[in-house]
Amino acid sequence: MDLECSPLALPFPEMPEIDGVRLRVARAGYKDWDRADLTFAELAPGTTLAGVFTKSACASSEVELGRQQVKAGTARALIVNAGNSNAFTGYRGREAVDAIQRQVAEALDCMPGDVVVSSTGVIGVPLPKDKAHAGIEAAQRAEDCDWEKVANAISTTDTFPKGAHASAMLGETRGELVGIIKGSGMIAPDMATMLGYVFTDADVAPGFLQEALERANAETFSCITVDGDTSTSDTVLAFATGKAGNARIENWNGPGADAFAAALADVCRRLAQLVVRDGEGASKFITVRVAGAADKESARRVGLAIANSPLVKTAIAGEDANWGRVVMAVGKAGEPADRDRLSIAFGGIWTARDGGPVEDYDEAPVAEHLKGRDIDLAVDLGIGEGRATIWTCDLTHGYISINADYRS
Amino acid sequence: MDLECSPLALPFPEMPEIDGVRLRVARAGYKDWDRADLTFAELAPGTTLAGVFTKSACASSEVELGRQQVKAGTARALIVNAGNSNAFTGYRGREAVDAIQRQVAEALDCMPGDVVVSSTGVIGVPLPKDKAHAGIEAAQRAEDCDWEKVANAISTTDTFPKGAHASAMLGETRGELVGIIKGSGMIAPDMATMLGYVFTDADVAPGFLQEALERANAETFSCITVDGDTSTSDTVLAFATGKAGNARIENWNGPGADAFAAALADVCRRLAQLVVRDGEGASKFITVRVAGAADKESARRVGLAIANSPLVKTAIAGEDANWGRVVMAVGKAGEPADRDRLSIAFGGIWTARDGGPVEDYDEAPVAEHLKGRDIDLAVDLGIGEGRATIWTCDLTHGYISINADYRS
Repeated sequence: MDLECSPLALPFPEMPEIDGVRLRVARAGYKDWDRADLTFAELAPGTTLAGVFTKSACASSEVELGRQQVKAGTARALIVNAGNSNAFTGYRGREAVDAIQRQVAEALDCMPGDVVVSSTGVIGVPLPKDKAHAGIEAAQRAEDCDWEKVANAISTTDTFPKGAHASAMLGETRGELVGIIKGSGMIAPDMATMLGYVFTDADVAPGFLQEALERANAETFSCITVDGDTSTSDTVLAFATGKAGNARIENWNGPGADAFAAALADVCRRLAQLVVRDGEGASKFITVRVAGAADKESARRVGLAIANSPLVKTAIAGEDANWGRVVMAVGKAGEPADRDRLSIAFGGIWTARDGGPVEDYDEAPVAEHLKGRDIDLAVDLGIGEGRATIWTCDLTHGYISINADYRS
Repeated sequence: MDLECSPLALPFPEMPEIDGVRLRVARAGYKDWDRADLTFAELAPGTTLAGVFTKSACASSEVELGRQQVKAGTARALIVNAGNSNAFTGYRGREAVDAIQRQVAEALDCMPGDVVVSSTGVIGVPLPKDKAHAGIEAAQRAEDCDWEKVANAISTTDTFPKGAHASAMLGETRGELVGIIKGSGMIAPDMATMLGYVFTDADVAPGFLQEALERANAETFSCITVDGDTSTSDTVLAFATGKAGNARIENWNGPGADAFAAALADVCRRLAQLVVRDGEGASKFITVRVAGAADKESARRVGLAIANSPLVKTAIAGEDANWGRVVMAVGKAGEPADRDRLSIAFGGIWTARDGGPVEDYDEAPVAEHLKGRDIDLAVDLGIGEGRATIWTCDLTHGYISINADYRS
């Protein structure tokens, strides 16, 4: 099935090369598509590693391995296989990953444990070792390529390549951060895993890199939802080559620590939003802003309850300012709320306030706002100081067509 | 919008009159529909009451009142308003309920607190007192009617009337139980509340009636889902008139206690399944059976994660035995699971076993099963003894059409 480009797509940004990162792609032929599907990112010795992973209880071998590698905190290469997730394949899946690690380690003269592997695509079929082997050899012969080519090579059913860039002053030194990501909900017959990678030339200790990534993740990737479903392979990794030559950032007191963390969060936020913009069947990008909750985490849960509600998502698809459905979603979130203090606004215009409809509510500007592509939905629970912002998309016939009409 | 009758509808069953219950309906005209929308069920003195309610943190005034009345444990009348939920209407909504209670109490010479009121329909608009008043007067002048008429009068966007009947031997005495219910997901612009009522002529102490209803609820209404959304007004009430003349059932050791509880659970199960059968856009009735979970509640949560997953629901709509999506849903449930012990079957045929696809899996009989209207999906987590059964429906273009294409 050829998918049309999402109407919410953004153009791929200009992104600089990152010193210490060498990018090559090749065609391993995991599926019968005619494009590169294997990425080989070679990383300078001394590159540090951090990662966050799916909370799924049925995580893939790659995720289990990645969790161990993040503890070690170093990496010399990243291999991404697109077209086969190698998930739910038992020991044979693990063998395929071992073989990739050994082959790449031999080529780079490094430890197999420093070769990070991600796979995305169809599940239940062990990754074919011969195709992976030939693909890696082809990548070694290939010319270096740019970020957009890599963003395409890691994709499965994405309708556009996704990247984001930021820079940060680390003391006197400028550090660059670039990120790429793939994922667009979960598409049959694949499990459309979200795989994201951020590369920086900054010199960052693995402990701090992990802390900064976890903090960024909490406010970005943990705050998006397309359909509430979670892949068994979701992974976001950060690699820091140290080539910028800044004084190594060891903790939050180090020079540039805050600037680096802010730039990392910025890249993560933009990558996360791009995933939503490629949500299956999405026609509107929705920002759900929750205020007045008991605390931050409670605000996030209320926001996700709203953003995951099929009734809220279909109402917005239908350009209907149906605040009753928002009341319902707040009520079912299982978080502290008070019906008589709840207020709801679309596009900055309050439609319900303190537990009841606004008396002289003028629907015209709200209706106009809902006709747009970017929808703003604000909820004030009126009981505390907790705030959160969640990003999601609407639920349309397109989602059903992609997920039900298409047979594997 | 005229909705076509659900393809999963069942005919309304033969249901006996219940001694001590007098049924009348009238047209209050809460909406501009041309049918009865107010139900007046008069209950014999001494009728006992039990109830379970939505867990929504934004519950309606009627729900708050109902919780108090259940503590008192007696009722003389039930009034159901269809077309206006009176939810999110502040003190004015509460005033409308007060007025109904006083009017009915005067007519029946009872306490206002013994008049139970439910409302369902559009939210944010206080129930019009004048219409309620005239509707109750019209009901008092109306002829007695049967259960099917009442099942229709309590409906909003339901596409067929729903009832269930069972009987139980209470010692030497036969007791009858009949139930009616409305609800079909939550339809714009209404909040399609689930309202269910069970009436019995058995003599049951309120404490035991409440315990039996809560036990039945845990395995029936708590085990269905259409879209994971929860109304602010969901209510199930049980009324026992005591006219059968059995020895009052006070506790689980009383004669007929087990038989009564089993019959009540049977009626509740059938009512719950009927709500699923009227799920918005439903084309298939899905039974999700979970076994091998850590415990019963864990099994129920895993079952609901599967049943609420848009990807599982769309796969079944597309008649695709996509067990990868079931793995995903199990993984995201947040319950104990082990990828390498997980088994999945459609229509009794195992497609994946102990963490991997079944080797010589024959898709033909599975594909045949998925073409049917009643789909059986079994999951064995392989780690414990916990079991649960969940009922749901598929997710189709019909759901999107009803919820997005229709404007309020």
